[in-house]
Amino acid sequence: MRIAEPLHLRLLRLLRDQGTVSRAELADRLEIPRPRLLAELDRLVGAGYIAEAGMAASRGGRRSTLVELNPNLRFAAVDLGASSVDVEVSNGRLEPIAAYTESTDIRSGPKVILHRVNELLAKAKADGVYERLDAIGIGVPGPVSFRDGVPVSPPIMPGWDRFPVRELLTREHGCPAVVDNDVNIMAIGERHGGVAHSVDDFLFVKIGTGIGCGIYLSGEVYRGTDGCAGDIGHIQVDSHGPMCSCGNVGCLEALFSGAALAKDAGLAARGGTSPALAERLAAKGTLTARDVAEAASEGDVTCIRLIRDGGRRLGGVLAGLVSFANPSMIVIGGGLAHLGHILLAEIRSVVYRRSLPLATGNLPVVLSELGPRAGVTGAAVLASDLAFEQAT
Amino acid sequence: MRIAEPLHLRLLRLLRDQGTVSRAELADRLEIPRPRLLAELDRLVGAGYIAEAGMAASRGGRRSTLVELNPNLRFAAVDLGASSVDVEVSNGRLEPIAAYTESTDIRSGPKVILHRVNELLAKAKADGVYERLDAIGIGVPGPVSFRDGVPVSPPIMPGWDRFPVRELLTREHGCPAVVDNDVNIMAIGERHGGVAHSVDDFLFVKIGTGIGCGIYLSGEVYRGTDGCAGDIGHIQVDSHGPMCSCGNVGCLEALFSGAALAKDAGLAARGGTSPALAERLAAKGTLTARDVAEAASEGDVTCIRLIRDGGRRLGGVLAGLVSFANPSMIVIGGGLAHLGHILLAEIRSVVYRRSLPLATGNLPVVLSELGPRAGVTGAAVLASDLAFEQAT
Repeated sequence: MRIAEPLHLRLLRLLRDQGTVSRAELADRLEIPRPRLLAELDRLVGAGYIAEAGMAASRGGRRSTLVELNPNLRFAAVDLGASSVDVEVSNGRLEPIAAYTESTDIRSGPKVILHRVNELLAKAKADGVYERLDAIGIGVPGPVSFRDGVPVSPPIMPGWDRFPVRELLTREHGCPAVVDNDVNIMAIGERHGGVAHSVDDFLFVKIGTGIGCGIYLSGEVYRGTDGCAGDIGHIQVDSHGPMCSCGNVGCLEALFSGAALAKDAGLAARGGTSPALAERLAAKGTLTARDVAEAASEGDVTCIRLIRDGGRRLGGVLAGLVSFANPSMIVIGGGLAHLGHILLAEIRSVVYRRSLPLATGNLPVVLSELGPRAGVTGAAVLASDLAFEQAT
Repeated sequence: MRIAEPLHLRLLRLLRDQGTVSRAELADRLEIPRPRLLAELDRLVGAGYIAEAGMAASRGGRRSTLVELNPNLRFAAVDLGASSVDVEVSNGRLEPIAAYTESTDIRSGPKVILHRVNELLAKAKADGVYERLDAIGIGVPGPVSFRDGVPVSPPIMPGWDRFPVRELLTREHGCPAVVDNDVNIMAIGERHGGVAHSVDDFLFVKIGTGIGCGIYLSGEVYRGTDGCAGDIGHIQVDSHGPMCSCGNVGCLEALFSGAALAKDAGLAARGGTSPALAERLAAKGTLTARDVAEAASEGDVTCIRLIRDGGRRLGGVLAGLVSFANPSMIVIGGGLAHLGHILLAEIRSVVYRRSLPLATGNLPVVLSELGPRAGVTGAAVLASDLAFEQAT
């Protein structure tokens, strides 16, 4: 059953997304009787969520006063990847005040990684970025029980299964915390401040070390029964394909992902089919998906073919998902989005050819606008939603 | 934004699904202050939706009075298939009072088909089944704009594109009407009174002339941006497969559906690989999927292989959808569900092997309980919801 959103939540979200607004305009926008709105505003000013911000320009008659979110609100956003950690501290309007990025290895386990997150946040505090945090949002690279705030059987995160991530962060920082899957927070970020702004039904496809999909349906993230919805990297695309880390054969991400592309690049370099890759391998001793992208942009035909093959396979999976979910947009993000327009053209070609015309008649397939900041942006949105919900 | 369901809708639905209930129990169940509930009940009795039904057994103290839906409420439910029309008239509790089934051809066009629907309903009226209808629900075998009440580019329904189905039925019968896709109404029916009772996230897979999927997410039917979500029959399963009616090659339903199975049966009968089918073909002059099912149950190995091959292909598609949507149940229905346990075993085997363990750990794959009545049941649910919403 659908539950109406309480007034304080609608009010605080509107100030987060719009900035400074007059009391008169708020009453109009929220369609709330003015006495009720003013009472709620007074309450939220008293509770420290909202601050006065001077007088509005006259609309004729008595001038209305402006309000904004308390400038001292602070949210922490954490995006844990397989090999990186991003931490941002933002104000109430989700504008970053401090940002930290480090290489790391998620396999070091929750104690090591979360200790480092806490150190980075302590550093921000020592630097005067915040006095106290109002909420923390964190994304992790695996399935999550959103309700319980714990990772659940995450394949690439040994030691994290059911580790109390939310509880640990709440205890350490004395504020509420929310835990979600890394692809979900990217989708949330892209909807808040990116290319999917205010789009209600879209798929956010992350191509990084692996492949995953964030699903927005009817204006909300859909997480599935066990929190693992969107795990499209293990859809089989070739029953005679290579073995995948999950134990099956021919999974999408065994054939196309950062890891698969690095492997293919090594084979091409050593097999003599790509002089550009061979040169890079000789110079650096190792190859990544980024080398494939760079060599392709220089015109290396083997690299162009690798990207197109991958785009074709991903496009085949997405064509099926378009038939199933009939979304109104597909956003491509993650580290390999820099494969760019060769990849995009191939995905579009397959999706437009293989899905029914009705579902693709008006379906943009586009690159993420927020790029590497999609995750922390979404984590900050989740953190602010949580803090606002609790402002009762 | 989520909107709370109004009291009258919750109340009427509860009486529809539970039958006769005392005023005292209603106040408890709906967690509504008693004076407000009693006022709303009085209003709905006055408006003809609710009727008194005597005294409840004593719970100690004053005895409460019973209420039920007005016994004169009548809903019409229509399920249009590619080659059949089912019409049921039910009371407020959705118990069928009259039912009609006829062979037809959806390609005759909307005027012919809807005229026949109106004739069947007129016959029911003449027989005293109803005096007036409170609402009509109708399912059609193609994509629908749920908001506009019209079919949209339906591939197998020439002449139906944007035909004003809802408007015509409303005008003819003087009551509100609701139009949906045939697979969606089957899913709604199965959730109301079948194996998916009260399950919030499940897929209902219809295998009939074609293949489609009804999608329940978070307790609601998901219809997609253009009303064509669940169109899984045109997901490609073999890039070297046969041509499909949609113009692509290797679609699921070109390889496995009622039509595909009938074609395969003909080839097997004439090619000498199935004596059982050859015998049937000689006797009847034509073969359908039902012949394959019957021959399989008699042990014909070619027919068993045809069903297993189909189940394997459908299972492959469903495995991908399980990874994507992480549902908590898959229900198999439609005319070919009578292929039964050979089919089910093959689908289960592929889904359980190919999807991630987290998503399949507790995932039943089961046959529809309502069978051919799933569609009309769901259409009646939609009709009653619409009538109840308008009871303001």
